[in-house]
Amino acid sequence: MIEVELKGYANDDIFDHVREKFKLMRREYQEDTYFSHPCRDFSETDEALRIRVKKFNGHFEAFLTYKGPKLDQESKTRREIEVPITDPDEHEQILNSLGFHEVMTVVKVREKYYYDKGIVITLDNVEGLGKFVEVETLVESEEEIEPAVKRLRGILNSIGVTKLERRSYLELLLGGKG
Amino acid sequence: MIEVELKGYANDDIFDHVREKFKLMRREYQEDTYFSHPCRDFSETDEALRIRVKKFNGHFEAFLTYKGPKLDQESKTRREIEVPITDPDEHEQILNSLGFHEVMTVVKVREKYYYDKGIVITLDNVEGLGKFVEVETLVESEEEIEPAVKRLRGILNSIGVTKLERRSYLELLLGGKG
Repeated sequence: MIEVELKGYANDDIFDHVREKFKLMRREYQEDTYFSHPCRDFSETDEALRIRVKKFNGHFEAFLTYKGPKLDQESKTRREIEVPITDPDEHEQILNSLGFHEVMTVVKVREKYYYDKGIVITLDNVEGLGKFVEVETLVESEEEIEPAVKRLRGILNSIGVTKLERRSYLELLLGGKG
Repeated sequence: MIEVELKGYANDDIFDHVREKFKLMRREYQEDTYFSHPCRDFSETDEALRIRVKKFNGHFEAFLTYKGPKLDQESKTRREIEVPITDPDEHEQILNSLGFHEVMTVVKVREKYYYDKGIVITLDNVEGLGKFVEVETLVESEEEIEPAVKRLRGILNSIGVTKLERRSYLELLLGGKG
């Protein structure tokens, strides 16, 4: 399966519209800490190493994720390896001991809404960046990517999104710092 | 608490003696995979990064462990950070993606016996190295290390161990290869 995902800039009106019209699946607080590699510049190699801590309904989940470089020029498809971890603080200490250091922590509140079978709308309120909407779906083959992208773009338009964004929140935050 | 540990060479007689005389706490199969760092030679810095997979009674447990360099010349005291992991294969894939590569896997059958309050005798049958006995205990302060070492040495002597070994199994296996 291939994850197809589009992201656009949002505002209060778009958030209100989605909240009224679609069913909330989950609301969570996410803290994503990105690390840099001691002998490989991830921003150059288009890789990422992340510890994500999610909090929702009094629960707590954490994951270690490696993201490989984008596999082609068109889509956002990447190789991604994610493992659940039980102690993110200790895990971070191991990474630090190995020479990795924190680049930045991206903090956001994420709300996921059910749009239609297989399609999810995500409202992200990102600290320091503001409001974004993501729509995503899964397809089985590469030929299905283009029609899926078209459909997702139509959904974003229909809820009022006019400007898309391909860069990650990390890239946007680092860019904004420069 | 400080872990005080002594290791010595064993043989069938020593194993039989311990098995007859002391109570078996646990028998497990351990696979320790050691990784090297892409820009730091762990054998020079006296560090180690390890994934340990334990199998016992049909159960399965895995841990990621970082071991810092020995903190002094006398004891084997090290800074150690260990976290449980749920998917060692995926975790290893992340390490590989980050540039780490496997140095060696140390495979052993480990039996732990209760000797006395706070003292454990471990029988290790290490693939490629043979039989070893470890005795360990915990002490609260540095002044207690020396008497503890003396007591542990006495225990090893009493079960027939004549030759001690300070090097790790990894070091012994790598040395044997050279």
